[in-house]
Formats: sequence, structure tokens, C-alpha cells
Amino acid sequence: MGTHAAPEVLGASAALLGAVRSASTDRADRAAVATDRSGFVPASLPDGVVFAESVDDVVQAVKLAAVHGVPLVPRGAGTGLAAASSACAGEVVLDLSRMNRILDLDPVEQIAVVEPGVLNAELNAAAGAHGLFYAPDPASTAICSIGGNIATNAGGMRCAKYGVTRESVLGLRVVLADGRELRTGRGTIKGVTGYDLNALMIGSEGTLGIVVEATLRLRPAPITTATAAAFFPDVAAAAAAASAVIAARIQPSLLELVDGPTLEAIDLALGTDFRRRGGAFLLAQTDGFGAHLEMDVLANAVEPFASEVLRPDDEAETEALLAARRAAIPSLEQLGRVSIGDIGVPRGRLAEAVTGLHEISERTGVRIYTIAHAADGNLHPMLVVKPEESVTEGPAKAALGEMFHLAQRLGGTLTGEHGVGLLKRDWLREELGDVSLEVQHAIRRALDPQGILNPGKAI
Amino acid sequence: MGTHAAPEVLGASAALLGAVRSASTDRADRAAVATDRSGFVPASLPDGVVFAESVDDVVQAVKLAAVHGVPLVPRGAGTGLAAASSACAGEVVLDLSRMNRILDLDPVEQIAVVEPGVLNAELNAAAGAHGLFYAPDPASTAICSIGGNIATNAGGMRCAKYGVTRESVLGLRVVLADGRELRTGRGTIKGVTGYDLNALMIGSEGTLGIVVEATLRLRPAPITTATAAAFFPDVAAAAAAASAVIAARIQPSLLELVDGPTLEAIDLALGTDFRRRGGAFLLAQTDGFGAHLEMDVLANAVEPFASEVLRPDDEAETEALLAARRAAIPSLEQLGRVSIGDIGVPRGRLAEAVTGLHEISERTGVRIYTIAHAADGNLHPMLVVKPEESVTEGPAKAALGEMFHLAQRLGGTLTGEHGVGLLKRDWLREELGDVSLEVQHAIRRALDPQGILNPGKAI
Repeated sequence: MGTHAAPEVLGASAALLGAVRSASTDRADRAAVATDRSGFVPASLPDGVVFAESVDDVVQAVKLAAVHGVPLVPRGAGTGLAAASSACAGEVVLDLSRMNRILDLDPVEQIAVVEPGVLNAELNAAAGAHGLFYAPDPASTAICSIGGNIATNAGGMRCAKYGVTRESVLGLRVVLADGRELRTGRGTIKGVTGYDLNALMIGSEGTLGIVVEATLRLRPAPITTATAAAFFPDVAAAAAAASAVIAARIQPSLLELVDGPTLEAIDLALGTDFRRRGGAFLLAQTDGFGAHLEMDVLANAVEPFASEVLRPDDEAETEALLAARRAAIPSLEQLGRVSIGDIGVPRGRLAEAVTGLHEISERTGVRIYTIAHAADGNLHPMLVVKPEESVTEGPAKAALGEMFHLAQRLGGTLTGEHGVGLLKRDWLREELGDVSLEVQHAIRRALDPQGILNPGKAI
Repeated sequence: MGTHAAPEVLGASAALLGAVRSASTDRADRAAVATDRSGFVPASLPDGVVFAESVDDVVQAVKLAAVHGVPLVPRGAGTGLAAASSACAGEVVLDLSRMNRILDLDPVEQIAVVEPGVLNAELNAAAGAHGLFYAPDPASTAICSIGGNIATNAGGMRCAKYGVTRESVLGLRVVLADGRELRTGRGTIKGVTGYDLNALMIGSEGTLGIVVEATLRLRPAPITTATAAAFFPDVAAAAAAASAVIAARIQPSLLELVDGPTLEAIDLALGTDFRRRGGAFLLAQTDGFGAHLEMDVLANAVEPFASEVLRPDDEAETEALLAARRAAIPSLEQLGRVSIGDIGVPRGRLAEAVTGLHEISERTGVRIYTIAHAADGNLHPMLVVKPEESVTEGPAKAALGEMFHLAQRLGGTLTGEHGVGLLKRDWLREELGDVSLEVQHAIRRALDPQGILNPGKAI
């Protein structure tokens, strides 16, 4: 069933939208898919949205886009943080959220085959029924889709031990820019036939192909998990403690740092008293058969820096600590408009990074709240501005730029796990250099010479 | 210092070889670099060999190769098993073994920066001095180079738990086909700026660029390691036990299967009595703070299938078991010419794979000995022929072809960790399909339009 184009929709887009099985040009539908959760506001709305329900739908949309020269913006759940699925006039959104079936879950092989619209938490619930889990766990697990996770090579808290999305994707089924179907990777744990097209697709933000199916590695749920939390006089001490954990040569499965201002916001939202107990907070877990022994070593490494170390001994207390950490972003969203930074630094330089962030806040006048996946050196400095202010222009943009340069000075990176999208393109060349960008554009041209797949994103 | 070309060396190669700082066209030098340890015998010798001692030497050689249109075959330690560094007339070998310095080893960040010619075991010795290790551990660790490991995305016994080379390479410095220098990846644990060119280079067998420096992730040496070994009536029982270990949802750090014929060869070489004790053998390790507890669960999973389970309680006994496993390939090399297969199958189908291999041996008359990295479903069926017979032609080739089709029937792959090289090109299209190969060739053309880097390999 096609749809009639709204008057303002251009001819090429109208031709595409009129020919597919399910699409909309309603203003409300277009507004709903115009951006993600990055705070980026496109200057205009996309021309329309195609609702794909099958691989054939995707193939058809891509072929029509190629024929009519219409840029297609693939979209999962729209929870991205870098404007990689933002779309504007002249573009059509390809919504994959209806392709949301778990096609297979093999508990013996510990493998799942899913459509891209499956939510991360849904997959984890299905895996959990077999004593398994899917490792990547973005904070948005309840609302983000596996397809979006793959498009951004998403991380999360557990990747401290279990790696990012790339380490959990065995194979992909991808629709290329000319409508051909590509299979990458395989159904086995290891394999090295040909180039690693699987890794090339992961994190490419839909610019090299559209993922329509993924074969994922599940892992055994840990037999035991141990938890500790610690309070510190200030965030520099907490960062130093996190670096000491790494230097102690243990492998936490989770090591989350929360700074004082964020603790205040959490207290305000949850009625807790974290800020009174310390100027910064570290939450750690270890897992496996020796979880408690490993946690003893971790706690010893942290103790010299801490004002208080907690070893919760029941499930409820543990869950309350995890819930507080998870509440960080929602709590900040009650204070204003939030833009979530995502820099990565060498793990021994966390303290310098948090000091540098404090200085940036002082200099730019933008409030910065910091949480970090400390075991990976991945910081999420969150800029909070007034609801009517932009997070992508003015002082907020200046602060984002300074954050990038801070990361670079420390030998780090612009983005640890959220991706580039539209939001971070300005600093991409500075980090990657001319040769790398030229190579990336050459690969892009080889796969999508017309440039119809999510143009302007990722590279 | 240049070198005068031997009379049979072609004009273009002679121009290149005469212009570089250090090269040879001596017949003995050319013969020494003509092939690897795959058993592949090239029909002719390469025109010469360039000995690179610096990045500048590589850049110069590549630029000259581009100018003169000479195919360059990069070479590390020459221990490959797929003829990926084999070279013939009309080609020049670029020997990187003299670039063998560890440039940096940071025990706090747990990162090493090395030149490509550093041997795997050398890096592990240097890391070990700081309580760290480099995870990928091919059987050839003592003699294989990091550059070759990266070119083939090498695995080993430890990748059961710690992943293959790709999971331990953070960043690369690469000389492209036109002499430009590319930096891939980064010095931090996480990072998602742009396409994953790092993973694209890893396993590309030198066809997309020449790795001249690598930033590697080291890991803390496990605080405790537990070992068990078991004997079984036959290899099917051992394979079933290995699958049961995976199904028991534990994570061995090593799970090695050895079949009866290989045990006999080991006994012959070492004077041991393995074959008398069982028709197949499984060697397992777990590591970490809960290693012994985890090993208890592993041993329980194995026991129903085993005729004897050993839990060595001292270092010497453990080392003897590991040494026996490591002796498998050298022991077979005493029996004839060996070609080491490398198929991967889903982990629950190991028993079917070993049964299938037995049938192939019966059918083709080629003796097949099997060891396997069982936790990854990666089998190494070793064909042994008489010293005067070829392992790449006749019955051996037929057996290799049947092995590939067996893997494919079981949902597996042609090569788990050794690569494609020249040896497995015949079956590549069948596994990957036309679209994948077309995409790979398009990427190759985008990066090396002249096709001077290791042509004919990998894809």
C-alpha cells in the first residue's frame, strides 16, 4: 500500500515513497523520525518515512532510492547520541523498528539470530531464560535496538570485561546500496576467510549498507557476581582509584565512576544521600567463579583513595547501587537539556581527564557532569544547558570542542562508543588525519558510489 | 647499499632491487623466502628480496614497486600455513624480519608498541616481566612474528577465552600501496571514530597495506590457572565432552582435543604412553581467581564421557601435558610431509566433524590426524603424506576439498585462524559467495588499484 506525498515533498522522494509497501509523509510521522536523543535539531523534516517489515522491503526501498537518487537514512529505535539517524528535507527515513523478531536462539551454541529492530533488553530477556546474556548493554538497553547498537558499535557498562558490540557480532546480513544482499562473518566463533567485512560494517552508521539480520554471540551468565561501592573526597581521587584497579591487574566486569555534581542530581531525583557521603563515587563488580576473591583485591586497590568502601551483602542493596548509577542520565535530564559527551582516554589518565573537564566547565560556563566507564577510560561528560538553549551551538559546542582537544592531548579519542553521526564531524579530520579519511571515503565510494546511504554521517 | 641483479631477474624488479638500501638477488636468499610452512611449493623463485629495516625502507620499496609495477610480497617470519607469503618469478619479497624492536611497553596502561618483526614469544617474554601477557599464542609462538600474526589474524590456544589477534590489536601504522602512511585504531581500549580500518587490515594478508608498527593490548597474567586432562575411548567421545564443556556455560582458557592417531605420533616422538591410555585426549585449563572451582565444574562435565580424568597437582605434571600437546605437529612432521587443515564448525558439532574427517581419510586414503581448539570449534586436521608427495595436489588436495565441504555442511568455515593465502583460494567463492568477493575486490581496488601488494592472496 503506497501513500500520497504531501505537497512539499520533492519529486524523487515522492516517487520512492509512493512505490513502497508502507510509508508515510504525515508531518507527525516525519517529525517523529527526524532526529535522535543527541539534542541535535535538524533544520527541516525528512520528506517521508518508509516502514520496512522484511528484507524485501529494505531491498525495494534501497533500489528505489538508487533509481531516484534519494538519500536514505536508516533508523532503529532512534536512541542514538550522535545524530547518526537525523534526517532533513530531501532525505527519506528507512525505519527498521518493525523488523523486530528474534529468529533463532540456540542455547547450546550460545548464538542468537535477530532482526535489527529487536531491542537490546528483549534479547537479554530471551537469553536470560537460558542462563545466557548478550554482553553489550548501553544505558538505553530498554529502548535501543540491536541494529542501532551495530550501526554505532555500541558499548555499555559490561564491555569493561566482555568487549563492545563488535566482539559479540559473529555475522551480518546486509543490504548494499545497489540492493544486493551481502553476508558478512559466519556462524562460528572463529573464522578468517577474506577481509573482515563484518567489523567494517559494525560502527559504520548505515553508510556502507543496511543491516537486516544479525548473528550474535551470547555468553554464559556469570555464576557469581560481587559488588563494591566507594565514596571519595573528590573525583580526582575516584579516578586515581579506578586507575589503581587497572594497575592491580584485575578485570572488573563493571567499574563506573560518578562525580559529585552528578551525585547531587541523582539525590535530587531519587531522594538518596550520595553527595553527603562523598565528592565522587565508584561502583565496581567482578564476576565468575572467583568473583569475591577478585573483589577483595579490587577493594584493597581502591581503599587508599576512598573515604568509605561498601560491600553490599544482599541483592536489594546491590540493586539500589546499580539503580542509582543508571539514574544518572535521567536525573540530569530533569535539570535541563543534556548533551552526553563520550571521550576516551588511556586508563591511567582518568584523573587528568576529570580535572581537565572541570577546567572546561569553569572556562566556558557550561555545567559539566561526569560519569565514566572507568575500566575502559571512557568518560561521559554531560553538558547541561537550559531547555531553551542549544546543545550543538554556542557555549555548549565550544565546550564539546574543548573536550575533544582534552582527549587528544591525553592520547585519547573523540568518541568511545557513541559514534560520530553529524555531531562530531567537525573534529573527525583532526583525530583521524587526511590519509585515514581519504581511505574511508574511498571505501565508501567503492560500496556506495551514488552516496545514497546516510550521506554526511560517520565519516 | 644496492645490489646487482642476477641475469634472470626481470627489468622492473631489477630497477626496484637496485634502488633500495638493502636487497638481494642471490639464489639462496630468494629460495629462503620463496614460501612458508604450508607445504606449498611455488613453481619459480621470486626475483629478489628487499630487507626493510625502517618505515622509510618500506615506504621506499612500495613507492618503487608502484613506479615499476612490481608485485611486492610482504614477509614476516615465514611461518604461515596458507602460502600467503609465497612468492614467484616476477615478484619481489619485502622482508620485514629486521624490523624487530619492541618500541614501548607500558605496564600501567598494559600496552605495547612493536615493529612487525618482533616474535610473538619475545613480546610475551617482555610482557611477562611485568606480570602481563599478549593473548594470541599460535603454536609457532617461538618463531612467528607479530606482523604475520596480524596479517593472518592468528589465533592459538588461549583465544578460547581471550579472543584472536583482532581482539588484541588496538592500532596499526600501515604503509599503503601508494606509499602513504595510514594510522588505524588508537591507543585507548575503546573508540569508534570512523570505519574500523584496524579490523579491515587485520587478516588481510598484506593485500591492503603493509603493517610497520602495531599498538597491542596486553593483559594481566592470570593469578591462578587450573589444569585437567582426560582420556576417552574414542575421539567422538572426546568431542562430545568438549561440546558438553561449552554447554555447561563455563569459560575454559584452553580446551585442546587430540585424537588417537596423533597421540600415537606423540608417543613415538616423546616416548610417552598416551595412546595406551585412551583413544583420544582432552587438555583443559581455566584461569582467574576461581580457576579451581571452575575446573571442578569442567571436570564434572567431561567425566561422563571419559575413561580417565587427571587433575595434575604440580607444575611439572602440568607442563608435561602442555608439552605433549605442543609436540603434536612436530611429532607428525617426523612421519612425513604435513599439511595443517584449519576448519571451524559450530561448537556443538565437533563430534560430527571428527567423524566426517575419519570418513574422508577412509575415502581418500590420506592419513588425517586431528587436533582441535575445541572451545572455538576450530579443528586442525593434519594430512600426512610421504615426503616426496605433494600436499597441495592429488589425493591431499582432494582431502582438503572434502574437509572444506564437511565444514560447510556443518555450518562452518574453511579457515578458523590460518588464513586463505594461495592454498585455499579454490574454495573461497563457495564459502563467501559472489557478492562478498565482489565487495572485497572493490575495497582492494580502492586501496591498491595497481594490485601491487601481495596479489592473488587472501581474496
